[in-house]
Order: sequence, then C-alpha cells, then structure tokens
Amino acid sequence: MRILLIGAGGVGNAIAKIAARRSFFESFVVSDYDLSRAEAAVAWIRGRHGERVAARFAATRIDASDPSSVAAVAREHRATHVMNAVEPSFVESIFAGALAAGADYLDMAMSLSHPHETEPYRRTGVKLGDAQFAENQRWEAAGRLALVGVGVEPGLSDVFARYAADELFSHIDELGTRDGANLVVRDDDGNEIFAPSFSIWTTIEECLNPPVIFEKRRLGEEGGGWFTTPPFSEPEVFDFPEGIGPVECVNVEHEEVLLMPRWLDAERVTFKYGLGAEFIGVLKTLHLLGLDSTAPLRVRSAAGPVEVAPRDVVAAALPDPATIGPRMTGKTCAGVWVTGTGKDGLPRSVYLYHVADNEWTMREYESQCVVWQTALNPVIALELLANGTWSGAGVLGPEAFPARPFLELMERPEAEGGYGQAWGLREP
Amino acid sequence: MRILLIGAGGVGNAIAKIAARRSFFESFVVSDYDLSRAEAAVAWIRGRHGERVAARFAATRIDASDPSSVAAVAREHRATHVMNAVEPSFVESIFAGALAAGADYLDMAMSLSHPHETEPYRRTGVKLGDAQFAENQRWEAAGRLALVGVGVEPGLSDVFARYAADELFSHIDELGTRDGANLVVRDDDGNEIFAPSFSIWTTIEECLNPPVIFEKRRLGEEGGGWFTTPPFSEPEVFDFPEGIGPVECVNVEHEEVLLMPRWLDAERVTFKYGLGAEFIGVLKTLHLLGLDSTAPLRVRSAAGPVEVAPRDVVAAALPDPATIGPRMTGKTCAGVWVTGTGKDGLPRSVYLYHVADNEWTMREYESQCVVWQTALNPVIALELLANGTWSGAGVLGPEAFPARPFLELMERPEAEGGYGQAWGLREP
Repeated sequence: MRILLIGAGGVGNAIAKIAARRSFFESFVVSDYDLSRAEAAVAWIRGRHGERVAARFAATRIDASDPSSVAAVAREHRATHVMNAVEPSFVESIFAGALAAGADYLDMAMSLSHPHETEPYRRTGVKLGDAQFAENQRWEAAGRLALVGVGVEPGLSDVFARYAADELFSHIDELGTRDGANLVVRDDDGNEIFAPSFSIWTTIEECLNPPVIFEKRRLGEEGGGWFTTPPFSEPEVFDFPEGIGPVECVNVEHEEVLLMPRWLDAERVTFKYGLGAEFIGVLKTLHLLGLDSTAPLRVRSAAGPVEVAPRDVVAAALPDPATIGPRMTGKTCAGVWVTGTGKDGLPRSVYLYHVADNEWTMREYESQCVVWQTALNPVIALELLANGTWSGAGVLGPEAFPARPFLELMERPEAEGGYGQAWGLREP
Repeated sequence: MRILLIGAGGVGNAIAKIAARRSFFESFVVSDYDLSRAEAAVAWIRGRHGERVAARFAATRIDASDPSSVAAVAREHRATHVMNAVEPSFVESIFAGALAAGADYLDMAMSLSHPHETEPYRRTGVKLGDAQFAENQRWEAAGRLALVGVGVEPGLSDVFARYAADELFSHIDELGTRDGANLVVRDDDGNEIFAPSFSIWTTIEECLNPPVIFEKRRLGEEGGGWFTTPPFSEPEVFDFPEGIGPVECVNVEHEEVLLMPRWLDAERVTFKYGLGAEFIGVLKTLHLLGLDSTAPLRVRSAAGPVEVAPRDVVAAALPDPATIGPRMTGKTCAGVWVTGTGKDGLPRSVYLYHVADNEWTMREYESQCVVWQTALNPVIALELLANGTWSGAGVLGPEAFPARPFLELMERPEAEGGYGQAWGLREP
C-alpha cells in the first residue's frame, strides 16, 4: 500500500503520527497546500522515531481544490490510496482526482449538503454525500473503492452500529450517535476560557445546517426516509461514561444519518452532538446577530472600509484549535446508543463508545484528543484494507464492512500488534 | 440665543426637528463632519415647516475632534450655546472648543471613564465626567455654563431626582434610575429581528464597563462614595408602566450616578438598564468570544488579510439603528425610582417617569422613540436658559437647577406654549 495523505492540518498531522507506529504500508506521502505543514509532520516523525521510520514518509505540495493536481501528485507517487484530511469543501475535487489516478479513496467527512429551497427545516435538499453516491457506478466499474466517512464520527460510530446490528440486536429501533466531552481550556492564569476544540467555522456550518433524521416508516415518501428539523431540535441530556457525565445534546446534521440506513436496518437514525448549554447559546447568538454569515460585510477599519465575512472574524477572535491542546484537560467520547430488541427477544439498550483523554494524546502524540480520536480510525481502516480483511469496490461507508476485525485490531494491545485502544459497552 | 448644534446623527437630527417648533432662539446652526447630514436635517425642517421657520436654521461642516475647529465655527456663527450631540469620545474637544469661543455648553453624555488599573470591578478609576468637573473653576471664572448630561438619561432622570428631593421626600434612601422598553423590530416579512434601538458600539461600551454605584456611607473612603462592580451585577426585574411590563434590569455605568450625589442627598444612587434577558445574553456572549473588542484583528478576506476591530464588525452586521424606526413598535420608558421617607415622615416609594411611543414619534417627527426621547430634554433646557428660568456658571448637572419649571414646561400642552409631554408618578 502506497498512501497519499492530503491535508497536514490537525487531523492529517495526527494520521501521519499514528501511521508512523505501523508497518502495513510501503510509503506515506504527506501533502498540503502549505508545504511547510507537510514537512513539519514528517520532521516530527523523524525526531520521534528516527530516520528508518521517516524514510517511508515524504512531504509534498498539493492543490486540493484542483482534481488534476490531486491526480498528478497521486500518479507521481504511485499512490494506491488517497486519504482526504482537508475541509469538506474539497471532498469533490479530491474524490474525482483519486478516481482519475486509479487510486482508492478514503475520507472522514462527505460532500456538502444544500438546504431545501422552500422548506429547509422540513425536507432535505442536497444531502451530505449525495454528490459522492451519485458516482457509485463509476467507482464500481473501475473496481476502485471509495471508503467514505471513516473518521471517528462518522467512522467508528458506523463500525459500532454494524457491530450492534450483527451481534447484539435482532431488531433495531434507533441508531443514535451521541458525542460529548468535558474538555476545559485555561489561559495562562489558569482561568477557564471559551475555546472550541474543533474549527468554529466548521462547527457553525454543522450546527446551523438543518439537522437530518432518518425514519424507516417514511421510506415511501419524497425524501426516501430522510427529513430535516430546525437547528438544535430535540434537546436531550445524555449521561456520558468515564466521568464525563451529563451533557446537553441536540440534533445536528451529520454523515451517520446518511450512511447507516444504506446498509443497516433501523427504524430511526439520529445524530446528537453534546454541545452543552453554553455553546448552544453562543451559536444561537452568533446566528441571531448574523455573525455566522460567510457573506462579506463592509466594515470600517484604520485603513478605510474593508470587506470581511463575519464568520471569519469570529474564527480569528477565538484561539486556534490547533494551539489549545497543551492548555486543555478532560476527555471526549464518541459512540452510538442503540435501542431495540436483543438476540434473546427482550428489549435492549446499549451505548457503544470510545473515549480519548487529552492528557494521554498530548503526551503520546502531541495531538489534542478530539483531533487524535478522529485520526485513529482511518489508519485502522487502511491497515484492514492493506491486509485484505476489508475489501470492496464502489462508494461504501464503514458499516458496509465487518465490524469485529476493526474493533479487535483497535483494542488489541500495541505489544501484540494492535492499537491498544479499549472501547466500551454500557448497558443500564 | 444662538445655538450651534454639533452632530446631525439620530439625536442631533431630532433636536433640530424639535427646536423647529419653538421660537426661543434667534438662530440654529446644524453642524456635522458629514455636511450632507446637517443639510438633510435643515431640508426636512424646510419641507415640514416652510421657508420662514427654516430661515433661522443653517447647515455647516465641523470637525468635532478638533477644539480649534469647534471654536472657529462657534465664533463664525456667534454661537451663545454649543449643543454637543456626537459620540462621547468627542466630549473633551467640544467642551474645550466651546469655552475657547466664549459660549455656554450642553451635552447628553459626559467625558469617558477608564477602569481602575488593578481592581476594575471594585474601585473607580477615572470616572465619567471627571475630565469635565476638573475644568469647573475655569468655567466659573469665565462666567460660562457647562450644563452636562441633559438628555433623557442622564437629563430628565436628574430633573426627576431633584423634583423628588425638593417636593416628595424628607430623606432619600435610593435614587435608582430605571430604563426599560418593549420595543420590537420586524423584518419585511413581519418576523421579529434582533436590532438594538441604540448604537451597539456605545451599548457595548456602556454595558461592559464596570458599573458604578454611589453610597453615602462610603464617602470617607478612597473613591469618595463611588465604587464599581462586575458587569451585569444586581439583576432585578422592574415592572415598567404604561403596558411595558416587567423587564430584567442590571447595573450599568451611567452619568446619573456621578451627577446626582454632587447636588442631592441620598444614601445610595444606582442606574439599572432594562436590557432584558436576551440582550444581556448577547452582550455576555460577545464578551466571552472577544467580539466586543476594539483592538484590530487580522482576518482573511477575498482581498487578502485585513485588520478590523470585532466590535466594528458586530455593528456592521446589525441593522443601522437610524433606519429601524419605521419597522419598530412599542414604547420606551425613562425614570427614577425613589425610596425613602416622605414629607409626612412615612416610608415612601415612587417611580417618576416619561414614556415615548415609537409610532407617535415616527408620525410626528420621523424619529424613533429612543432617539427622540433623548433629544426632547436639551431643547427644553435650552428654552429655560433662553428665558432666564435656569441660569448659572461652572460645570453643572440638571439637578443643580429647579425641577418644577422644567416639568411644567414639558407637560404644558403645545397649544399653551409647552411641549405637551406628560410625565408620570407611580406609587404602589
């Protein structure tokens, strides 16, 4: 396997660092629009693991917005797998470039949605991933695999859902992804500050888009089972494990809802994000004031009027999520709450989850936990593809593949060739 | 009396329009940095009242930041009174320019405060108006009057406080200015929108500065009776009259607290602003995210990185308060809640107030009610100075003058030479 990683931001950087401990690939090219970021990732690997490990890695520049640049770099390095780790706005160009170069493709977020023109909070318009699934036949015909949504959420959550469907339930009422954390960021004086652990730009996009829900009973209707609600709908306090505790969660548009119903049988599929009451309030206020907008506004400045998008100003006013790792404490939890009927015919409710602790990820990888937890899963998936445990062609989600080998490789101790990452099953 | 009005923004424009119905002055020059705004005010008067009324008015350009420009324009037009109606950051230059030109001076907001360097939320630093009171001897020596803080709040509130001290109370426990409204702004589709009726820039300044409180028992302490608290302190729901109803009020830094104790005897002086829970939440969020800051940030834009102050972006994202009048309904109330011992020796609690209804101010003056209510009071004060009912020298607040003539002129019907503006006294 020859991997081309596109994007050396937080998640891309962590993917390279995690891969550096593994031996399943022949070469790993880290590419970025900003070459210095790609080089920094390789330099970190050289410093931590020595020249022998770093010899399998290379750094190069790429323009992710241009399919022909993506294809050219993939061909130049004879990439067998293109791993997309940039903003979702570049999904379509990388997806096309990988196919053109004859490589398999993996991503952690799918092509973007567009709200319904007249009833955005009732009906779906263009859904997450629609542009990719429309290309399924082309990928199948080429015998190439596009494994989409294989981060932590989507990704590990989809693996958990497949595991529940295969091994725990005879009938599933709801596949409810639930994501929550108890992360706290402090300033130099030790005071708690407001500093989201993921890009505020992307978070606004996710949270203010109409949340999408799947219900099997609506399959015959226009929309094919999928429908939308207003932002922040169906608030619920979910009690997260391992000391995180109760966090207010709301519906958010997310890939799981578009992926799981394509391969798994469930009455209902949802995604709720544990934003917490404070963060929900902040997002509502930004929307109320129009500060979530990406349309440039004319604003006075010392150099005369300038045109800036309010959302870019909000992002600039907050600490860079890439820099807050050392000042952050706490854990983040990703998982799926599955309800339905167990194999024994009795009602069952389980929460399958994985927790990442920021102090551990910082110590082991100099990577903050939210970013690191996302990066872990595509590396495991690549390893399963490299050794043939997973294989396929077309545009497929993680739930299209057997879950047990993934979870076994993930939890097996590092000394025994695994990733040493325990996962949990909580049953009330 | 020859008046030079500086500033033809919302309040300045309304002052000129209100003055146009009065005959107490000989000439009235409307000046602004933007000459077209000054000309627009005079053109409105010409259109509404005809050439004979407009003949007493003129428009000119001025640089309010430059005391010599202020003095030159005042001398050129032989102004006897300079009426300051611009942002408080220009108070000191206009104040100095008026004295240099030998004119009396009036304003509606006082020179700005600076927080205490080490204990901003406990002690005062430079207080509102300190820079002006420091010049008192110079004004007294010149025999010139600076009547400071003579809008609605400060202004009418100070007149009410003097009235209560003279005619209603033998001992005052608290002079508590309370300001609240039930204004609603709608978009073209009739949906309620977030659109503050006063400059968000100034509102942030007012609300995030440490609120100041006066307590007589602290007179001997450093600070001379004045102290500060954290923003939004002592929340209280105050029930406003004439259908406005209960509104959440919090302490806000305001001139009344600095003015009233200089002339009136009270155990405690406070100012609480009926921001309402939603607006308080918005201001807290802006502060949490650093979006209240006036320090320029580097932000990406289509034209490359630019430097903008987040607070300017917030102001640009919201509807211009000068344009929302036609889309606004509701009333605004300004008043003072006085508690203590009545003339009869019994406990007494009264709320003295004035209410402005936006539909009325828009119909009569094409001016929104918050702006119009502010503009009314300096015109009444000018009239009392013109006819000699009020006179004095030095830097004086409205409470340094007898209140009854002001309130009588204000409430007397227009047909009988008054302003036709009723005020209320509510006693539980």
